[in-house]
Amino acid sequence: MSQVAAYLAPNATDPLAPGIVERREVGPNDVRIEIQWSGICHSDIHTVRGDWGPQHYPLAVGHEIVGVVAEVGAEVTKHQVGDRVGVGCMVNSCGECENCVAGDEQFCAKGSVGTYGSIDRDGTVTQGGYSREIVVVEDFVLRVPESIPIERAAPLLCAGITTYSPLKRWGAGSGKRVGVLGLGGLGHMAVKLAKAMGAEVTVLSQSLKKQDDGLRLGADHFYATSDPATFKTLSKQFDLIINTVSAPIDVDAYLRLLAVDGALVNVGAPPEPMSLRAGSLIGGRRSFAGSQIGGIAETQEMLDFCAEHGVAADVEVIDAAQINEAWVRVLASDVRYRFVIDASTLG
Amino acid sequence: MSQVAAYLAPNATDPLAPGIVERREVGPNDVRIEIQWSGICHSDIHTVRGDWGPQHYPLAVGHEIVGVVAEVGAEVTKHQVGDRVGVGCMVNSCGECENCVAGDEQFCAKGSVGTYGSIDRDGTVTQGGYSREIVVVEDFVLRVPESIPIERAAPLLCAGITTYSPLKRWGAGSGKRVGVLGLGGLGHMAVKLAKAMGAEVTVLSQSLKKQDDGLRLGADHFYATSDPATFKTLSKQFDLIINTVSAPIDVDAYLRLLAVDGALVNVGAPPEPMSLRAGSLIGGRRSFAGSQIGGIAETQEMLDFCAEHGVAADVEVIDAAQINEAWVRVLASDVRYRFVIDASTLG
Repeated sequence: MSQVAAYLAPNATDPLAPGIVERREVGPNDVRIEIQWSGICHSDIHTVRGDWGPQHYPLAVGHEIVGVVAEVGAEVTKHQVGDRVGVGCMVNSCGECENCVAGDEQFCAKGSVGTYGSIDRDGTVTQGGYSREIVVVEDFVLRVPESIPIERAAPLLCAGITTYSPLKRWGAGSGKRVGVLGLGGLGHMAVKLAKAMGAEVTVLSQSLKKQDDGLRLGADHFYATSDPATFKTLSKQFDLIINTVSAPIDVDAYLRLLAVDGALVNVGAPPEPMSLRAGSLIGGRRSFAGSQIGGIAETQEMLDFCAEHGVAADVEVIDAAQINEAWVRVLASDVRYRFVIDASTLG
Repeated sequence: MSQVAAYLAPNATDPLAPGIVERREVGPNDVRIEIQWSGICHSDIHTVRGDWGPQHYPLAVGHEIVGVVAEVGAEVTKHQVGDRVGVGCMVNSCGECENCVAGDEQFCAKGSVGTYGSIDRDGTVTQGGYSREIVVVEDFVLRVPESIPIERAAPLLCAGITTYSPLKRWGAGSGKRVGVLGLGGLGHMAVKLAKAMGAEVTVLSQSLKKQDDGLRLGADHFYATSDPATFKTLSKQFDLIINTVSAPIDVDAYLRLLAVDGALVNVGAPPEPMSLRAGSLIGGRRSFAGSQIGGIAETQEMLDFCAEHGVAADVEVIDAAQINEAWVRVLASDVRYRFVIDASTLG
């Protein structure tokens, strides 16, 4: 065991504070990573606050991790000391179930092991990326191409794959009309990725406040959802809408923006139920769907795609001392478009 | 114009009664059909009762029509006098929009012309299959293979295509696990068709009352949805569930019966909104979708498929005088599994 500096939530309500987390000795298949940057995801806050169930505290969150390999186990073949690597939302899965075999480790029948707040194979509670080091089984460590600025790569490990996977699965590409609902951390990645895939991209944002940003990020069009005219103008205009909003929406209104065979795909998960009419689906053979991160192979594919197409997150870099303030700003949607913590300041 | 005997709804509430409907002269692209059998679909009742909007009365409903070609227009090439043909839910569409060109006439951008209660190109209100004859543009007339018993072919024109289309689109076939929710007119066709496609078929019915029927129709398994254990036993067991129930369901509960990438597809359209949680979709990359009949080419494909695989509807044949009584039984779900009217008794 080794002790590494971290920023920890002491409980569901108090501010995060410096502390330590224990990392296991490097096993034969493990990789020890010196973390350089760690993104702040809204999920970190939901988890700590107990929105998704009770937690073990103190807890270090963070699942957008990039750094350098510091040590490898005797049987590791995929990574070497000095490699630039990343870790996303999962650090293990059974590897044997139908879903793992299909490359969908996030849907592991036995439950994938989350990067923080999960019970790991050794019975310990996993501790995430708001820390100086992490030890992860090699299969869940990604290669981060050198051409991606490292601090801008961190958010790809969650926000990137969360949007890349549904865009790819639902056919975003040349000739396809993609709407991105919400322009936050996930939305800004969806815009960049859909554009890089060749789609015609429209941002659907509450107001026109972020219009300049949206167009700069690559969107072809930008509409305010607070304007009722938007829903007339864009009727039946999309093949795919990625919904990044973590609050209930008027599902029927957005389904009516879809052409025949269109899909409205949720990547955010508001806990409140949403309501819709079957007629909105039937009247255009439409789908209301959901997508959850992506498998490990697909995450690697996404990183390679980003390197090839010059895609990276827009980030605000912060020191550890600014984490609590950053959380307040995340809750106020006041970040363009992802906070990334300089892990060297964690203590 | 010619006058033909029919059974008509005088208004939204009173019983149907004998009367006449006018049919246009056979134009160059028209086919005049002597109707032999006409199925009773729940939609007939919804339409007459005004559940889907106000109607013009008197109205002859019916969109599961089979018969024999009695006359063809000068430019008709697809059908000849004496051919055994059918007409389903549509009798025209623009033919030029993106959806018509793609073979999805049911989603015609200008609105397809329904077989009854729609405004036709000549401004008249269309009158359906509870009548002795009908005149339809040749492109919307289907060939009914001789090997299908004719009275059992009628329901294929609506119940058949309504279930065939989503089964095919969502990949029902060998190695796929298909659930059929509700064993009525649509459900019994879904069971037969999914089985003929090679899928493993499970009926999800409110009780076990129809279990013998379900197995006889080809289902491999039969479960009662009134038994909470069903939802545990069948957790994540389906690739596709066709929902034929025309009332709101517990969407989350059925989504949880789907494996990764599974789809719950509605073919009934309850007017009431339904509620679900995004997490039920995201937690398995699932879809909640809808499907509406099928295009003309696909309807022909379905009829040919039924001929090839020996599939036809289970019907109760009735005379015109029994229509009102049959409607009462349809509303009580007391029909196995489709009433078909002997059109020669219409007057």
